[in-house]
Amino acid sequence: MTELDLVIRNGKVATAADVMDCDIGISQGQIVALAAELPKGKQEIDATNKLVLPGGVDAHCHMDQPMNDGSVMADNFYTGTLSAACGGTTTVIPFACQMKGNSLSAAVEDYHQRATDKAVIDYAFHLIVTDPTPHILDEELPELIAKGYTSFKVYMTYDDLKLSDRALLDVLAVARQEGAFVMVHAENSDCIAWMVQRLAQLGKTTPRYHATARPQAVEREATHRAIALAELVDVPILIVHVSGAEAVEQIQWAQNRGLRIYGETCPQYLFLTEADLDQPGFEGAKCICSPPPRDKANQQVIWDGLCNGVFQVMSSDHAPFRYADPQGKQICGTHGSFQYVPNGIPGIETRLPLLFSEGVNKKRIDLNTFVALTATNPAKLYGLYPQKGTIAIGSDADLVIWDTQRQVTITNEMLHHNVDYTPYEGMTLQGYPEVTISRGEIVYQQGEVLTQKGRGKFLPCGLSSFARPKVYT
Amino acid sequence: MTELDLVIRNGKVATAADVMDCDIGISQGQIVALAAELPKGKQEIDATNKLVLPGGVDAHCHMDQPMNDGSVMADNFYTGTLSAACGGTTTVIPFACQMKGNSLSAAVEDYHQRATDKAVIDYAFHLIVTDPTPHILDEELPELIAKGYTSFKVYMTYDDLKLSDRALLDVLAVARQEGAFVMVHAENSDCIAWMVQRLAQLGKTTPRYHATARPQAVEREATHRAIALAELVDVPILIVHVSGAEAVEQIQWAQNRGLRIYGETCPQYLFLTEADLDQPGFEGAKCICSPPPRDKANQQVIWDGLCNGVFQVMSSDHAPFRYADPQGKQICGTHGSFQYVPNGIPGIETRLPLLFSEGVNKKRIDLNTFVALTATNPAKLYGLYPQKGTIAIGSDADLVIWDTQRQVTITNEMLHHNVDYTPYEGMTLQGYPEVTISRGEIVYQQGEVLTQKGRGKFLPCGLSSFARPKVYT
Amino acid sequence: MTELDLVIRNGKVATAADVMDCDIGISQGQIVALAAELPKGKQEIDATNKLVLPGGVDAHCHMDQPMNDGSVMADNFYTGTLSAACGGTTTVIPFACQMKGNSLSAAVEDYHQRATDKAVIDYAFHLIVTDPTPHILDEELPELIAKGYTSFKVYMTYDDLKLSDRALLDVLAVARQEGAFVMVHAENSDCIAWMVQRLAQLGKTTPRYHATARPQAVEREATHRAIALAELVDVPILIVHVSGAEAVEQIQWAQNRGLRIYGETCPQYLFLTEADLDQPGFEGAKCICSPPPRDKANQQVIWDGLCNGVFQVMSSDHAPFRYADPQGKQICGTHGSFQYVPNGIPGIETRLPLLFSEGVNKKRIDLNTFVALTATNPAKLYGLYPQKGTIAIGSDADLVIWDTQRQVTITNEMLHHNVDYTPYEGMTLQGYPEVTISRGEIVYQQGEVLTQKGRGKFLPCGLSSFARPKVYT
Amino acid sequence: MTELDLVIRNGKVATAADVMDCDIGISQGQIVALAAELPKGKQEIDATNKLVLPGGVDAHCHMDQPMNDGSVMADNFYTGTLSAACGGTTTVIPFACQMKGNSLSAAVEDYHQRATDKAVIDYAFHLIVTDPTPHILDEELPELIAKGYTSFKVYMTYDDLKLSDRALLDVLAVARQEGAFVMVHAENSDCIAWMVQRLAQLGKTTPRYHATARPQAVEREATHRAIALAELVDVPILIVHVSGAEAVEQIQWAQNRGLRIYGETCPQYLFLTEADLDQPGFEGAKCICSPPPRDKANQQVIWDGLCNGVFQVMSSDHAPFRYADPQGKQICGTHGSFQYVPNGIPGIETRLPLLFSEGVNKKRIDLNTFVALTATNPAKLYGLYPQKGTIAIGSDADLVIWDTQRQVTITNEMLHHNVDYTPYEGMTLQGYPEVTISRGEIVYQQGEVLTQKGRGKFLPCGLSSFARPKVYT
Repeated sequence: MTELDLVIRNGKVATAADVMDCDIGISQGQIVALAAELPKGKQEIDATNKLVLPGGVDAHCHMDQPMNDGSVMADNFYTGTLSAACGGTTTVIPFACQMKGNSLSAAVEDYHQRATDKAVIDYAFHLIVTDPTPHILDEELPELIAKGYTSFKVYMTYDDLKLSDRALLDVLAVARQEGAFVMVHAENSDCIAWMVQRLAQLGKTTPRYHATARPQAVEREATHRAIALAELVDVPILIVHVSGAEAVEQIQWAQNRGLRIYGETCPQYLFLTEADLDQPGFEGAKCICSPPPRDKANQQVIWDGLCNGVFQVMSSDHAPFRYADPQGKQICGTHGSFQYVPNGIPGIETRLPLLFSEGVNKKRIDLNTFVALTATNPAKLYGLYPQKGTIAIGSDADLVIWDTQRQVTITNEMLHHNVDYTPYEGMTLQGYPEVTISRGEIVYQQGEVLTQKGRGKFLPCGLSSFARPKVYT
Repeated sequence: MTELDLVIRNGKVATAADVMDCDIGISQGQIVALAAELPKGKQEIDATNKLVLPGGVDAHCHMDQPMNDGSVMADNFYTGTLSAACGGTTTVIPFACQMKGNSLSAAVEDYHQRATDKAVIDYAFHLIVTDPTPHILDEELPELIAKGYTSFKVYMTYDDLKLSDRALLDVLAVARQEGAFVMVHAENSDCIAWMVQRLAQLGKTTPRYHATARPQAVEREATHRAIALAELVDVPILIVHVSGAEAVEQIQWAQNRGLRIYGETCPQYLFLTEADLDQPGFEGAKCICSPPPRDKANQQVIWDGLCNGVFQVMSSDHAPFRYADPQGKQICGTHGSFQYVPNGIPGIETRLPLLFSEGVNKKRIDLNTFVALTATNPAKLYGLYPQKGTIAIGSDADLVIWDTQRQVTITNEMLHHNVDYTPYEGMTLQGYPEVTISRGEIVYQQGEVLTQKGRGKFLPCGLSSFARPKVYT
Repeated sequence: MTELDLVIRNGKVATAADVMDCDIGISQGQIVALAAELPKGKQEIDATNKLVLPGGVDAHCHMDQPMNDGSVMADNFYTGTLSAACGGTTTVIPFACQMKGNSLSAAVEDYHQRATDKAVIDYAFHLIVTDPTPHILDEELPELIAKGYTSFKVYMTYDDLKLSDRALLDVLAVARQEGAFVMVHAENSDCIAWMVQRLAQLGKTTPRYHATARPQAVEREATHRAIALAELVDVPILIVHVSGAEAVEQIQWAQNRGLRIYGETCPQYLFLTEADLDQPGFEGAKCICSPPPRDKANQQVIWDGLCNGVFQVMSSDHAPFRYADPQGKQICGTHGSFQYVPNGIPGIETRLPLLFSEGVNKKRIDLNTFVALTATNPAKLYGLYPQKGTIAIGSDADLVIWDTQRQVTITNEMLHHNVDYTPYEGMTLQGYPEVTISRGEIVYQQGEVLTQKGRGKFLPCGLSSFARPKVYT
Repeated sequence: MTELDLVIRNGKVATAADVMDCDIGISQGQIVALAAELPKGKQEIDATNKLVLPGGVDAHCHMDQPMNDGSVMADNFYTGTLSAACGGTTTVIPFACQMKGNSLSAAVEDYHQRATDKAVIDYAFHLIVTDPTPHILDEELPELIAKGYTSFKVYMTYDDLKLSDRALLDVLAVARQEGAFVMVHAENSDCIAWMVQRLAQLGKTTPRYHATARPQAVEREATHRAIALAELVDVPILIVHVSGAEAVEQIQWAQNRGLRIYGETCPQYLFLTEADLDQPGFEGAKCICSPPPRDKANQQVIWDGLCNGVFQVMSSDHAPFRYADPQGKQICGTHGSFQYVPNGIPGIETRLPLLFSEGVNKKRIDLNTFVALTATNPAKLYGLYPQKGTIAIGSDADLVIWDTQRQVTITNEMLHHNVDYTPYEGMTLQGYPEVTISRGEIVYQQGEVLTQKGRGKFLPCGLSSFARPKVYT
């Protein structure tokens, strides 16, 4: 055995299934040995009393994504991936979004240019399909899938993004045929537009009415519809950013019937409520995202869903819109109404610490579930496994050493994104990433950034492990 | 690094989360290294093109258990554990059953004597609590739990075993207080007795009426009741040997509400149907078990439940009653009726091959789910993890090398139990255990038994990882 | 056409289906004509601007029922039926309760003696079966059914009343065979006993803990069990006094599957909450009944159930225990605990005014539903239709004229029962009975009692219209 | 009392609540007396041993409705209403259908011209809203509602009829504001179009594929969506022509939650199955309707729904398309595919005899339920009560005398519609209308038509009794 490049020694190592005390041996960026005691490596890190986890895979996050509504994302691939890395995430999968009327390949190409010199950790791309012409469906999509863009997101709302049910069926059929995997933003567009108009007529335009305009029934309806469409095509899908009990009920209904319907949730549905949109002035805009946060009882349902199989993945849905900028949430909104506020909140750096502190430390979920939800499952879902998402022989050495005792009070100042606020300002957490390692390189250590722009590599994705259709008896 | 005792080389190694190509290094009976390439060991096994899985943990099986009804179990700890080992199982957890009026400690002591010189693999004991007097509840149970008997099974049916609802609550309360874990046999005793009597009056006594006497509503009712009792005490439970859609619906109902209700199923509910009880002569008695097998549609529901989180564990419920013996199923039954036939069927050796062939190979479940259901989850459920149930640094080297290409047609002759039949006679499977290793020792290899009586050790259990009560937001 | 004995003129007449403006002609105690304009009768009542409804049938009420626990019912058949009549009820069906070890016929005979010289309105008897010996099942019950005692109540709780599941099955089987109808008090006895004991150990004995000891899960479990037993026997049943969402969920589950499961609720579940048990001193004992009242959200579910088909009948469950008497609720309870307080509250006189005011007047239910729930359905359920429960040619002239404008503030003083309190003291209602007519005789008019003891007649019941088993396609 | 115009003597008279033996006295077209014995009238009908029921209200039927697809309805208002009358129906409510781009008033006016000189029984109009412009919503609809067109049907499928979700919300909001009532045809348009296209590509175009193209999930999805939209607006709706278990499940889900969601079904879902579309040649086209018939198990669910409150109304959905005409089903379809076959089947004359024979006579439903489903409830639903739909003082004398013993084998020849087939050819029924009376006039008697074109009158509708929104506690 040649000398190891790096040995992480004496840590408590966890995967989605196991927890063990062992050393980790790394060579050429890969994990090559797990052992009770490894020989000395060129570089050593002492992880005594620390936890060593797979680096997070943030499978739902936005950065430097061109927007149609004039808003501008504050994070490019540098600040976005840096923020991710400092929060314990080593892989991101943002979205190459088709502009209606344009090709998907163009979007992919453009997005590569945005990423290539900036990313500090590895990245893959989901596709957002907004205009599934026959050419897109029959040629571009299969070609892109073959090149490693194996997952697409489809929207049931937002005028510039949404697909009709028929277009959804077409996209699902391509996914089924090619083995690709589809993520669905499930909210009923017409209902929201109708509610927004009614609220506008009543002069109800402050941020709190964003939640009024998108009640749970709107999300539940679209969830049921997405399930029915997937059922017709007989193909698995993932319902993303599930916010509360009513959508959960539909997902459970489908899962209980043996349908391959999967669920994703996000920190905002565990830690925020509708009340956070109702703040003095226009401050509530900071918490505007879609679907909106619900209430305490719904938070409990989401927590339960992390344990009982409703959710396979917990992502940030990081959407980096500044509050005070000219294109920011405040300015957009105060010109008229909550309806002009860009939807989405930042969270790529806080995702893992929040879930670790409130989930693992408070015993709501166990450590294996934490790893599964934040790293292993998203890697499997999107065809990055076993390269990413676990601690196993042959996998990339994407690792995070956690100090489970460290207490941190979240401030926006400490975060590395380019957004001017965090919705979690002031929350005190226990447990925080101490060292982040990407392909065997330390990119972040005890508050210090030890990496440079552009070292992150693009990851072509294989087919999803979850896209396998059901086998009938 | 001192020389390894055993190296398993070039296998495809799977855990409940991962699949990796690596060597496994074993020293003093434990796994001490997983690596891309390990130095030569004292002993080597080439696992090229083979799968290396954690040895199975059969958490629900009966052997040499004293019976009140005059029936006699055909397997003692030697034949029972040998049969297990030859089928890829390296840990068994049979039952030390309290006789009404007697102490539990006596049952434990007696059961140790039955096991100690015979077992060829390691074993732990569940307790069966049939007479929860204050002394048992307040003194014996806490003492036994402290000594490593941390799980108990309770019955809602069988005259000599069943507990009243109040007694069930008392036992659950002890479980909650001490962190022990309760398994529930959920069938409504009165309904069965009433149905049996009615059927007897009508002269309907052949084996097929065993299924008539125990319709799904009887299992569903008891399942709902067990859930309600556990809900009152706020303690997790496991519903064992779930047979079909109606009980599944209740478990899902509970899981959907966030209750910690777990489920176990068995091969008979995946591979047999009610029709198997309706055979010429009294042959149907061979498939009498409780609850009875249902139909094809229910099999599908059970398969779905292996994927969607209803079931955490799949056990054999091995109950070794011979068919043709003086105390066997045939003789007992033909004296009068199905009602005198001992309930239960053999299956300790076929459990894993059946699930591997029809589940993993036919892509109904993935390999990680197979490992989780048959090894890792039962080890965690019953406090044997991480010693048992996984392939991880520090865990016992309980390993099974699977030849995934091998085709085997099941015959009773090839099995190592002492029962005179198998319900799966004639089924052809693909994939079979080639080598079984217990604490680093090869106990079975390519058809040959390489172990001796009594090498198996008793395993005191820790507290269940699943017994943790729910944390409320 | 001979001269009519009585004409009620110009009223708005409602049945369970219709509302019409017409005169009602009565002859020899029966309704013989409904017409736009009838010729003058010997007696006339002007009902202009008034509502004329069928007299109420209170199908669940207790009076002068011998109790095993030393408590004494304050209402005999005189005060009980008088109170009923003054509240708009013209038929009552109290319970002839078998004493364990005794015959049912004896109970019936005894109960006739208690009723015969006292009742002021007509009455039938339900049987309470507490000891279903073969003799009772095979001989007494069939004989009693043939004589007009066609419904029985069974208890799943209370030590002196409860039946085992097996005994329940036996009773249900007789009901099926003879076409009788079974009412079920569904609460899990063991759970309650266990909770009561735990609470006693903790010194939690004030009336509010009565509700703690009987949480919804206890009622839900027994409801599910009763449904399962009825499903096995394939016979309709009625779940009585349903208190909240969890039992309702089970009944809906059964109804949704096409099972003939019916539901009854009572005013206490619409107008009281658990908080009413938590009053200064021991006053909360006044609202102790079983199941206990729940909370506001559950009240809504009960209201919904009156509209959407969950409930077919709304009864009083009048249980006339005085508060301050030597055998009263206060004294029994303060000797130790809520557990000694007789279960049940008075309400035979307030049942209809409460539901009319808060249901019909506030548009929660319509007038036809009011009539159906309080008169027509109970008459049909218990084989008294068409003699009782409606306004139709040939039916008994049991009629109530309602002043829908009258405002009444309930005080115990104004009520005619012999209980020293009403749980509804101080509630202000709109709409109140003005005249009560039994078989064409005015028994109550504008506050005046115009009847005498003993005019009420015993009503032998036919078979229930609801006992018809399901026909399968 | 002046002499009665007509007395129906000695019949067994049933309403939605009651059954009584009485005479019915009619004067000036209205029921003025129900009595044990009435004086002689100018005209008398002896109904001894006969049943007298309210004439049916067929609230969902099509006749002489202009079609966009070139198909032509075979029944005009003469043959359509005559056929209805001969089958025991005395009121019909067909549809005045807005053409996209045109006004609703124009459609109403045109439809009046089609009806006025032809109808032999009374009729009201539903509106079909296909193009809810602001003018329609704000002006035409409120005006039409005020004039007695108080119910509208909206479509979620068919290109020339369907509304977007937003348009549905707009229409529901008008309904809520004005107290009007909305009927919803719930099938997902895009799914059907997608399926039809796929089937066409596979050459699967025979009538049986009509059912393949519209699986239950398509109906279930739209049902859930319609419920969600109604929930948002907080207004009751009726899901029309519900075909099977999956849509039923959604309606029950809504009803169980206390939402005011109502259901209608039709004979085709009780008496036909998918197999009826799979006949030699193109004959299956005769049974093409939407949603399509399902299977036997679904028929049972529909039967159950008639008893347990899922359905409030059972209509014919009479759609009179000839099979062999140039614009008929056969010719349209064989030109290409099932997709060109007009959707809908005849049934206005067979609706009541089918339900009476198979429902009432076979004891699947009781007589009151029959009356409620076919007459009283539709009259209440659409604001025609108490003028129509019952036998009560002051109601129109729309009555049907049933010979419950008569056996009839259905042939198309005996029917009075202008369609060249009936799907029920050859079925033998027991019980058939003997006399149909409309406003006191005998229009049909023992096989003879005794009426003339144009005697039927238009019925302006009041507001629905079912449109009342829920009152919250």
